[in-house]
Amino acid sequence: MQIGLYRMKVSIITIGDEILIGQIVDTNSAWIAQRLNEIGLQVHKIYSIPDTEDAIIRTLERARKLTDIVLVTGGLGPTNDDITKKTLAKFFNDTLVRNEEVLQHIKALFQKFGVKRINKLNEQQADLPSKCSVLLNPVGTASGMWFEENKKHFISMPGVPHEMKNIMNTLVLPEFQSRFSNGVFLHKTILTQGVPESILADLLEEWETSLNTDVKLAYLPSENRVRLRLSAKGTDKDQLNELLDDEIQKLNKIIPEHIYGEEKDCIEQRVGDLLFKNKATVATAESCTGGYLAYLITSVPGSSAYFRGSVLAYDNKIKEDILHVHADSLKNYGAVSEQVVKEMALSVKRLMGVDYALSTSGIAGPTGGTAEKPVGTIWTAIAGPNGVKAVKYQFGTERLWNVRRGASAVLLDLLHELESIHKKLE
Amino acid sequence: MQIGLYRMKVSIITIGDEILIGQIVDTNSAWIAQRLNEIGLQVHKIYSIPDTEDAIIRTLERARKLTDIVLVTGGLGPTNDDITKKTLAKFFNDTLVRNEEVLQHIKALFQKFGVKRINKLNEQQADLPSKCSVLLNPVGTASGMWFEENKKHFISMPGVPHEMKNIMNTLVLPEFQSRFSNGVFLHKTILTQGVPESILADLLEEWETSLNTDVKLAYLPSENRVRLRLSAKGTDKDQLNELLDDEIQKLNKIIPEHIYGEEKDCIEQRVGDLLFKNKATVATAESCTGGYLAYLITSVPGSSAYFRGSVLAYDNKIKEDILHVHADSLKNYGAVSEQVVKEMALSVKRLMGVDYALSTSGIAGPTGGTAEKPVGTIWTAIAGPNGVKAVKYQFGTERLWNVRRGASAVLLDLLHELESIHKKLE
Repeated sequence: MQIGLYRMKVSIITIGDEILIGQIVDTNSAWIAQRLNEIGLQVHKIYSIPDTEDAIIRTLERARKLTDIVLVTGGLGPTNDDITKKTLAKFFNDTLVRNEEVLQHIKALFQKFGVKRINKLNEQQADLPSKCSVLLNPVGTASGMWFEENKKHFISMPGVPHEMKNIMNTLVLPEFQSRFSNGVFLHKTILTQGVPESILADLLEEWETSLNTDVKLAYLPSENRVRLRLSAKGTDKDQLNELLDDEIQKLNKIIPEHIYGEEKDCIEQRVGDLLFKNKATVATAESCTGGYLAYLITSVPGSSAYFRGSVLAYDNKIKEDILHVHADSLKNYGAVSEQVVKEMALSVKRLMGVDYALSTSGIAGPTGGTAEKPVGTIWTAIAGPNGVKAVKYQFGTERLWNVRRGASAVLLDLLHELESIHKKLE
Repeated sequence: MQIGLYRMKVSIITIGDEILIGQIVDTNSAWIAQRLNEIGLQVHKIYSIPDTEDAIIRTLERARKLTDIVLVTGGLGPTNDDITKKTLAKFFNDTLVRNEEVLQHIKALFQKFGVKRINKLNEQQADLPSKCSVLLNPVGTASGMWFEENKKHFISMPGVPHEMKNIMNTLVLPEFQSRFSNGVFLHKTILTQGVPESILADLLEEWETSLNTDVKLAYLPSENRVRLRLSAKGTDKDQLNELLDDEIQKLNKIIPEHIYGEEKDCIEQRVGDLLFKNKATVATAESCTGGYLAYLITSVPGSSAYFRGSVLAYDNKIKEDILHVHADSLKNYGAVSEQVVKEMALSVKRLMGVDYALSTSGIAGPTGGTAEKPVGTIWTAIAGPNGVKAVKYQFGTERLWNVRRGASAVLLDLLHELESIHKKLE
């Protein structure tokens, strides 16, 4: 019997004190959830629990009761604080047996590092429950395990992200795809700015009530924007895409002035695509953003095709010496001023021979603010084929947020400029 | 009756599909766990569940059975997809009543944004369960709620991080501190590099078995390092600190060559402290790290006291024109070479008149590698009072990791150099 779409409920159990004491943030679960959605499977519950036998067994029982597939991460290391394997063996009334293939794999991994004889702890990693299918870990010594009992599936994997991802990608997801999936769970998220959630809901009331019944809407507010997430489930990915795009088009007509993009569009990628397509180049002259703007631009693979370089002039003397900002401008207007960011952008454009140059100068904080230029004041400029234009932003008091928001803001402005120039050219 | 230390078990329930579909990573729980540990409270379980009445009520029941304090985040917005408030009212057999103080607060918040009349959705945010103590949200319209029933505590807060943190900091934590806390749960994490977990466990076996019984040890492996976490609970913070430091001292004697710091010491902060203390200055000349190194240095508040600036020479022409790298060096050795990183560091040191200059040049990937210089090859150099020294690193294939690891590596090298010079001077 083929198990139908959305019939299989999934839960995730992450084992380890590091999440419960706040030492690490659980990023594995989000990654797993995304991959499962792509093949139509949905996570119904995530549990984070400590490395104790009692907690593990109780939660396995609970997850078995509520869901069909239980993905367990963590607690598979060779040391004494890791007890997931032996607790799973207990849960399934199983014993550990030496797996020769796994043992050879562990030995081979250590040989790569120049370790000739592995120790007892690593040998024991080859002892695995007899009832499970072993999921060989190509990049580590802790194997995954797949138990199947009364049509319920329990998959245990290491907590180290790249090891978990490797086992998921090579062994678990392909098996899920062929056994449990016949569809997709699709999400699209529209980014809005400038309207509080409740007012947005007012504006969208009519649209919301007439929304296709297969589409689910969620409002996701954050500090200065609201994201609108549309979700749809089904078997035909293209059809779902169309369904969601239809609704997004309607949205675009109702609140065009508040929408600034879709979540999947990462600004630096879109900027990069446009620059590449138009064979244009870019450089930056940064003060308060301290290199973060260049880092954003160069985080895109292939950015060396259009990014030339940058001058970070933290010190005013560097602004004068390398960027040739006039001493008078610095004296009369201050480093955080329209005049100075314009000179910075124009200068680096000339210096590096690029088509577009971005500049930033501001007060990142936490100190250095004045009544006239409080912490969070950031001037940005773009020098391009149409001259130079400066914009002033006023952000908050958190240093790192100011740096990131300043860099994102000027990059978004560049995107808009590239889009408008590009459209005109088409 | 004073409730004793560690008697109160805490669980966290995060409500909202965004975590279950992997749209966001749950950072709230880690923050809450850290704050609670500081006052001796421990999180026993974290649940992430969807916005459905059934899931919320089942999980509340479960959490009530297993723990004494239940912290709930999410699902308090004004729109239809948020159902936490009415589900809590149902769970406690309660009804909603209009709270005038909250209504005035919501009106005042909207007036700040120029909205004179609030709509029905926002008015309804002032309707709150009659049995709860209302936790006024100073930075948002969704109030928190505190229910107390049979010595069990249920606290519901918005999921927007800065709103949750505000309510926790101003209202919840002070109350917890006075009612439930008389101690602290302390963690210290030692960073080791270059030894696999199992071999480390061998080296530390004797120390581990003789560890003070109040101290708990965990091995936390990640890609190229193992962190050792020592935890201790007690009432006297200073005493616990001493206890952990004693064990860390022992560790330092057993594996001095593998330890490179404590987790709380962020490298850029330590570098900054040493530069500031010694009135020394720094600049960078970056290629493959694309500004990330400068971003790390300038992420420290007050870094403008010692960071002068940077030249990012992504393009070889910029390396020649601005950094005056010899054309011959680029031609004969390639941009990713000992010769070129040394010239880059020396040049930016001279150009910016600093005491220390760092440089990077490498192949971040995913493309651009050769047999001789595969993706992940990164040359770094430090020019300082003792001349210039270059180091070659070989990382992996992931672009962003290569950038981050390259930047961290040269910064760590600088830290060691500063420490050795500084010690000699003392």
